Amino acid sequence: METPSLFQSIQEDLPEVERFIQTLAGVDSPWLAELLTYILRPGGKRLRPALTLLAGKFYNYDQERLLTMAAAVELLHTATLLHDDTIDRADVRRGVSTVNARWDGSVAVLAGDYLFAQSAVLAASTGNMRVVQLFARTLMTIVDGEMRQQKSAFDWNQTREEYFGRISRKTASLFSMATESGAVLSGAPEASIQALISYGYNLGMAFQIIDDILDFMGEEQEMGKPVGSDLLQGTVTLPALVFMELNPGDDSVRCMMENPGDNGHAARVIQAIRTSAAIPQAYKVAGNFCQKACSGLASLPSMGPVESLRNLADYTVKRSY
Amino acid sequence: METPSLFQSIQEDLPEVERFIQTLAGVDSPWLAELLTYILRPGGKRLRPALTLLAGKFYNYDQERLLTMAAAVELLHTATLLHDDTIDRADVRRGVSTVNARWDGSVAVLAGDYLFAQSAVLAASTGNMRVVQLFARTLMTIVDGEMRQQKSAFDWNQTREEYFGRISRKTASLFSMATESGAVLSGAPEASIQALISYGYNLGMAFQIIDDILDFMGEEQEMGKPVGSDLLQGTVTLPALVFMELNPGDDSVRCMMENPGDNGHAARVIQAIRTSAAIPQAYKVAGNFCQKACSGLASLPSMGPVESLRNLADYTVKRSY
Repeated sequence: METPSLFQSIQEDLPEVERFIQTLAGVDSPWLAELLTYILRPGGKRLRPALTLLAGKFYNYDQERLLTMAAAVELLHTATLLHDDTIDRADVRRGVSTVNARWDGSVAVLAGDYLFAQSAVLAASTGNMRVVQLFARTLMTIVDGEMRQQKSAFDWNQTREEYFGRISRKTASLFSMATESGAVLSGAPEASIQALISYGYNLGMAFQIIDDILDFMGEEQEMGKPVGSDLLQGTVTLPALVFMELNPGDDSVRCMMENPGDNGHAARVIQAIRTSAAIPQAYKVAGNFCQKACSGLASLPSMGPVESLRNLADYTVKRSY
Repeated sequence: METPSLFQSIQEDLPEVERFIQTLAGVDSPWLAELLTYILRPGGKRLRPALTLLAGKFYNYDQERLLTMAAAVELLHTATLLHDDTIDRADVRRGVSTVNARWDGSVAVLAGDYLFAQSAVLAASTGNMRVVQLFARTLMTIVDGEMRQQKSAFDWNQTREEYFGRISRKTASLFSMATESGAVLSGAPEASIQALISYGYNLGMAFQIIDDILDFMGEEQEMGKPVGSDLLQGTVTLPALVFMELNPGDDSVRCMMENPGDNGHAARVIQAIRTSAAIPQAYKVAGNFCQKACSGLASLPSMGPVESLRNLADYTVKRSY
């Protein structure tokens, strides 16, 4: 399923978000312009801004404000990726050199700060206090999630609840900010806002679980990173947790976390998880979050965007990379 | 002159800001609590929050909102220092180990992000849209200033205007945000807000110039960093610029920037600048900014805070570290 067809209700808006984002690279300094052009290049799915636009289509929306907020959401996401890659010393993301690899860590820190600032300026320019407060709180939540991930690195002894807590902060919070801000900016009644928050949150949970599954199941070439890279970096995700639940006597994941240098052992563990029942079980958990995401959609006005949101949930569990 | 006596009008408020800031270190995670306690330890002058409080004392202020904003101002300042030190790989600030030295660069990046987020949450919680938009714009300006400083490192061929542009972004923007936010939150009329913006901005310019002078003139022990450390790191400040203006045939600063490894030459250049007429001339420039800062104060209601603001400007040019 191609991404564009998912977004029928907003197919004219998404290119506008793209254009809007591209204009932000048009700064005086040639050095900064080159850096921003690289960072903001088209190619991503722009899933989060699409959520803001879709969530904003049910009531009285101002197109300009929705586009501005959609761009703010995408920039906040991009800023966190820049800092995450710097902290993880990642060289490649989706097959393309990271800023810390192509320039250096200092440039990536500053570029991330710049995009945090730019996204804050855009969010504030909506003039909506609820949206601004949501933006600030979400930034805090995401950083908190990243801190927890850093602290729990190479800790094999984690519960599903800790994992859910982490991905809810790192990923779902931004998805639900995307839908909430769209809903609020279009003057939706509170019940509709809550339905769209719940959609965004649960979709974000499902999305991250699928991402974590694909890290084991994807092809290296498609993903632009090695298979099992999360676990290789010490990030224990749902497939590994379920694998340990299913095999309580097997201490291979524990050994891998305690001896991060043993590549042969690591490859065997990743292969064991790939071919285990942990994968279909993790898919099932993601599917449940998707169902929960859609459960409140019936309360929204029956319009095109509802269909797009349903398709999007469907696409999320079926996507292959 | 002791700092506390400067702030008679707010002598009961400053300890409250301090308490407020300390409560932010009280988080669940023991690891994060330790980190925040270290970062937010008392000891700094808390000059910027003092400006917010002073600027907020002329009209109808709500003490709680002023304190919240004062804390936001200080946290934003602290966040930028954390990232600056990481980028500069500085080991020590004011005689104390930096976070990047005591923990590591990744922790410092995340801690800075955390404080950016926390300061945004506090600024947004004032519920004042002008203040929120000012906050976002100022964050953008500061990051822009830091980027310019990084780009101009080891470039000896700079104008005073470029230097002023840099410090106005890096330092004066935050000083003027401090005074503007205090004034706006107390419902000051626009003319008073403008007088306080001008005060904050020009005081910030003077403050940074004095800081840059003291980097040459201070004692290593008092400053907690080597004499001439800015120039050693390639940051060309006003004393060096004036020195080059006064000695057009002397290419020693240029040589130092082009051969950053030659410590003997660097020590001679720093000594030459210390003992040159560039220092009193730079002091004069700072003095002019201070005068400009105070020139609008007469238009404010004649109350205690005016005296404090005047004393503060006086202290700024006379401080020794």
